[in-house]
Amino acid sequence: MKKLINAPAGVLTDSLRGVQAAHPELRVDTEHRVIYRGEPTRAGKVALVSGGGSGHEPMHGGFVGLGMLDAAAAGEVFTSPTPDQVLEATKGADSGAGVLHIVKNYTGDVLNFEMAAELAAAEGIRVESVVVADDVAVQDSTWTAGRRGTGTTVILEKVVGAAAEEGADLDAVAALARQVSASGRSMGIALTSCTVPAAGKPTFDLPDDQMEVGVGIHGEPGRERVPLASAHDIARMLVDPILADFDAAGPAIVLLSGLGGTPLIELYLMYGEVAALLTEAGIDVRRCLVGDYITSLDMAGCSLTVVKADDELIRLWDAPVVTPGLRWGA
Amino acid sequence: MKKLINAPAGVLTDSLRGVQAAHPELRVDTEHRVIYRGEPTRAGKVALVSGGGSGHEPMHGGFVGLGMLDAAAAGEVFTSPTPDQVLEATKGADSGAGVLHIVKNYTGDVLNFEMAAELAAAEGIRVESVVVADDVAVQDSTWTAGRRGTGTTVILEKVVGAAAEEGADLDAVAALARQVSASGRSMGIALTSCTVPAAGKPTFDLPDDQMEVGVGIHGEPGRERVPLASAHDIARMLVDPILADFDAAGPAIVLLSGLGGTPLIELYLMYGEVAALLTEAGIDVRRCLVGDYITSLDMAGCSLTVVKADDELIRLWDAPVVTPGLRWGA
Repeated sequence: MKKLINAPAGVLTDSLRGVQAAHPELRVDTEHRVIYRGEPTRAGKVALVSGGGSGHEPMHGGFVGLGMLDAAAAGEVFTSPTPDQVLEATKGADSGAGVLHIVKNYTGDVLNFEMAAELAAAEGIRVESVVVADDVAVQDSTWTAGRRGTGTTVILEKVVGAAAEEGADLDAVAALARQVSASGRSMGIALTSCTVPAAGKPTFDLPDDQMEVGVGIHGEPGRERVPLASAHDIARMLVDPILADFDAAGPAIVLLSGLGGTPLIELYLMYGEVAALLTEAGIDVRRCLVGDYITSLDMAGCSLTVVKADDELIRLWDAPVVTPGLRWGA
Repeated sequence: MKKLINAPAGVLTDSLRGVQAAHPELRVDTEHRVIYRGEPTRAGKVALVSGGGSGHEPMHGGFVGLGMLDAAAAGEVFTSPTPDQVLEATKGADSGAGVLHIVKNYTGDVLNFEMAAELAAAEGIRVESVVVADDVAVQDSTWTAGRRGTGTTVILEKVVGAAAEEGADLDAVAALARQVSASGRSMGIALTSCTVPAAGKPTFDLPDDQMEVGVGIHGEPGRERVPLASAHDIARMLVDPILADFDAAGPAIVLLSGLGGTPLIELYLMYGEVAALLTEAGIDVRRCLVGDYITSLDMAGCSLTVVKADDELIRLWDAPVVTPGLRWGA
């Protein structure tokens, strides 16, 4: 294992310390492993809280800031944050206007966010939740009942964050979050495994001439292993299952995310192939992101996310955002 | 070789096509392999033109846009752009107010930019040049006389781009560029080699228990190979040679760039270690960037850049920038 780390057990804490050093505008609680905006949530603003296992950076901590999240709870690598962590983040972020929990559909995350929501409710905080389950690769999986939650989460946090910033109330924020969640589909492929620091070796073996189609963001098996293909053919493997799953024609926001170990020159090349297929299918890509936004440690590969987007969603997408991972317009 | 590509020979063209698809606000000339802003350079504004071998993305094409470059010429992977490409970019970007060439110190780049500058001068375009040679790892190297040019280039393009945007004339822009160039130092380490698509195999062999200290951004050998070290010890290997090379105490802009294959969780962890040492050395990190800004294909590792910065440089750093790779304030 070759990584820029100290002891494997300290990776999360050490990394959070670096986040705090690099981003004095954020407040990092290294004890509870929660990243907050520097200023308390403004009175009357619904707070957005997300979180999950670490290893997917910049998700979620890198999306804390104006126009996106108010707090993110960071679990150990590929491990759900505890109910206590999520409760802490919920209490710390609430301004009195209520809190939206944004949860990726993994069994541990769903249970722990539910428990935290109940504990918060007992303390008088109103919590709504949205569970993202957008990965079309597999029904059920190693860590989920139902579909896994992936890239739609990034777009949801941006769009819903903008609505909360504009003053939408908790019901409206939650309704919008469910709309975005229902409007997104994702599909990923891996060329290599990732290596969890505490494990010290690759999560799975993938021969030099094979790739994993439909891989999960923790290296969970996908649909099949196939011979290593060209970018042109891989684009079809990403786009076709999404098109088969819903009617994607019309305006959309698209994310092509690297998984952590794939350089930008390859991601742009893949995006060129993907964009041609999306256009051919009648998808009008109104906005897109190409880069590392939801990753799987050092895995080589990429995931494609398509979110159907009306003019209102595009407007919210374009609204100002100031976070370590996404920043524009302010 | 596992990469998201089609034919190795088509990587650059295919990737540029993806850049155009993802960034309709830019104009990509795939014939000459030059990336321009969407709009011609505004009358009276000095144009900034850079370029170099591909494989270092987002540098340079990802830094074209408001507040940074006007054009970037993209050579083949790890290969200098031709004089014709640079001349094309220079002519395409000039508004009549002159052009600054920003050149990283590699023999081919320096020669080809010089030739392009002469050809442009013959056509009546005034060109000034700045050569960045900030890498303290080695004097002379595989591809350079003198030091290699690395991360200071990113900071220079941002700061000098802001000055050009504000209307500084060619002499002032060139003088500022030389000031920034002289104020920056860089040092990098690699945990793995990179793989050039046309070569199909790693550029060098690095045993599982070793790292390369002072590596160049094309995989050129550095100072030494040492046993794989902790992030804490690696931070010293990055910071000490920079401190030994110049008096860095005082305010600074700092870049910790990944080399393409290292995930953000590790880069932030490294930044935490580096920041502690910089502070200890009396460096006041006024601004920092952590992420992939100047890369070496899929190499695992990182490079540290420290640029001494007075209030005026910080002001220019904070000025609006709208490019694929850096974006804020507008």
